[in-house]
Amino acid sequence: MCHACVMDSVKERMLSRRALFRGVAATGLATAATGLIAARPALAQSGGRVIDLTHTLTPDFPTFDGRPGIEMVESVNFEESGYQLYRVTFEEHSGTHIDAPLHFSEDGTSVDELDPATLVCPLCIVDISAKAAEDPNAMVEPADIEAWISANGDIPAGACVAMLSGWADKVGTEAFRTDADGNFAFPGFSVQATDMLDGMGVAAIGVDTLSLDPGNSADFAVHYGWLPAGRYGIENLANLAQLPATGATLFVGAPKHGGGTGGPARVLAVL
Amino acid sequence: MCHACVMDSVKERMLSRRALFRGVAATGLATAATGLIAARPALAQSGGRVIDLTHTLTPDFPTFDGRPGIEMVESVNFEESGYQLYRVTFEEHSGTHIDAPLHFSEDGTSVDELDPATLVCPLCIVDISAKAAEDPNAMVEPADIEAWISANGDIPAGACVAMLSGWADKVGTEAFRTDADGNFAFPGFSVQATDMLDGMGVAAIGVDTLSLDPGNSADFAVHYGWLPAGRYGIENLANLAQLPATGATLFVGAPKHGGGTGGPARVLAVL
Repeated sequence: MCHACVMDSVKERMLSRRALFRGVAATGLATAATGLIAARPALAQSGGRVIDLTHTLTPDFPTFDGRPGIEMVESVNFEESGYQLYRVTFEEHSGTHIDAPLHFSEDGTSVDELDPATLVCPLCIVDISAKAAEDPNAMVEPADIEAWISANGDIPAGACVAMLSGWADKVGTEAFRTDADGNFAFPGFSVQATDMLDGMGVAAIGVDTLSLDPGNSADFAVHYGWLPAGRYGIENLANLAQLPATGATLFVGAPKHGGGTGGPARVLAVL
Repeated sequence: MCHACVMDSVKERMLSRRALFRGVAATGLATAATGLIAARPALAQSGGRVIDLTHTLTPDFPTFDGRPGIEMVESVNFEESGYQLYRVTFEEHSGTHIDAPLHFSEDGTSVDELDPATLVCPLCIVDISAKAAEDPNAMVEPADIEAWISANGDIPAGACVAMLSGWADKVGTEAFRTDADGNFAFPGFSVQATDMLDGMGVAAIGVDTLSLDPGNSADFAVHYGWLPAGRYGIENLANLAQLPATGATLFVGAPKHGGGTGGPARVLAVL
C-alpha cells in the first residue's frame, strides 16, 4: 500500500475507532478503569526485590528509523569547573520509552498529563516467546490472553499487560529490527487482543520490541486503537523473563516534559 | 572567594572527603547500606495511593543558571504523517532531577549505573518550612535529623531523606531562586547533617529547591561530600507537603542514558 493510502486508511480507522470508544464509554464498559487503587494488590504483597526493566539508552541502541535515538554533548567540563554535566538530545520514542495517547492522536493526553495512579500498577506478563521463535512477526492474540487468564486468574483493572517475546536478548543484533531480507520483523500485539484488554480496564500495554504493533504491520492498528483511547504503551522493555506471569508491581517512571508525546522512561518492577 | 579559590578549596575538600569515605568503608560503617531490601517495609504496608513528586518540565521552569532547561522541536507532524513526536534537548540538571555521583566526581557512578535497588526506598521527610520562612538559606541541621528520629524512630538504611522547605510553592516566582537583592537564596542541607546521614546508610537525599546545598553556599560542600561517596540526590521535588513524615515508599524514575551525570526523573511516592 502506498504511503498516502496507508494514511487514508489510518485516518478512516481512527475516526471509526474513536466512535467505538465513545460508545464504549457511553455504555459504561470503560468504568472498570476507575477501580485502579483497589486493583493494586501486588504492591501490598511486595517483598521488595527490584528488577530493572529498562535498557541503558546509548546512541547505538536500535531505533525504529535507524538513526541514533540520543546524543550527548559535554556542557560543563570537570577539569575546568570541578563538576560536570551533559546537554542531552533524544527523539522521544527511543530506548525503553512511553507512548502517550498524544503520539497517535492530534489532541490526546500528553505524557505529563497521564494520571500518576496509572503509573504504579500490577504487571501481567504474557509469554509468547515459543511462537515468536518460529515467527518473528508473532502477535499476542485473544487466545494468549484467554490462556493467561485460565492459568493466572483475571487481569486486574488498571494493570499493565506486557508481551514477553524474548526479543530483548536480540538488542545489539540486526535481528532485533529486521529479518534476513532486511524487512521489519518483530513481535507485537494484535488489535483483537488489545480490543479485549480495553474491555478489562487495562491501563497500559508493554512490549520487549520496538513497537506495540508487530514489525510487519502495515497500518499501526494497535497504536491507533490503543493510544487515542487514553491509554499508554511501553516499548523496548528489558528483563521481563526474570519475572513471574503475575505478582509484580510495575513502577513506570514516565518522563514529565510538558506537552510531550512520550519519552525515555525508567521502568522498574518490584516483587 | 574568587572562582579559582573556590575550585582549589573544593578540590582539597574532595581529596580529604574521599580519604574519609575510604576510611568509613574500611571500618565497615558503610555496610548498613547493604541492608536495603530488609529496610523496605513501607512498600509491604502500602495501601496504594500515588502522589506525584515531579514538577512538569517546561522551558520556563527555573534553572540554576537561568537558561531554559529544556527545548522541544517538532520532529514528526501529525497532519502530515498521522502521528507526532518531538526531538527534546535538556540540560541534565533541569526540572525534578537526579544528581548522580558522576556529577561531582570525575569517575563516579553514572546515572545508568545506580543500583536499581536504591531507586525504591522508604521516604523520610524532614520539615524545616517554619525556619525557612524566616531564613531563605535555612539548612537541614543535625538537630533537625535528631528531632525527626525522636518523633518517628530510626531512619531506615537505604532510605531517601527529603527536605520539605515549602519552596515548591514558589516555582514561577523569582523567590524560588533569589532574594530581593537578586542573590541565590533557597534552603538546602548542611554538610553536618549529610555527614550524619552517611553514617546511617541513607541512599539518597532530596530537596524541594534548586540545589542540595543552600542558595548562599560558597563551596557546594554537600554536593562534594554526598555524591562522590556513591550516593545520589534529587532536586526540585514537588508535593512533599502532601505526605506524612514517614510511611511512604519512594519510586525514583531516574533516567538511564549511558554515562549520564543525572537528569530529569519521574519521582512518585506510594502511601
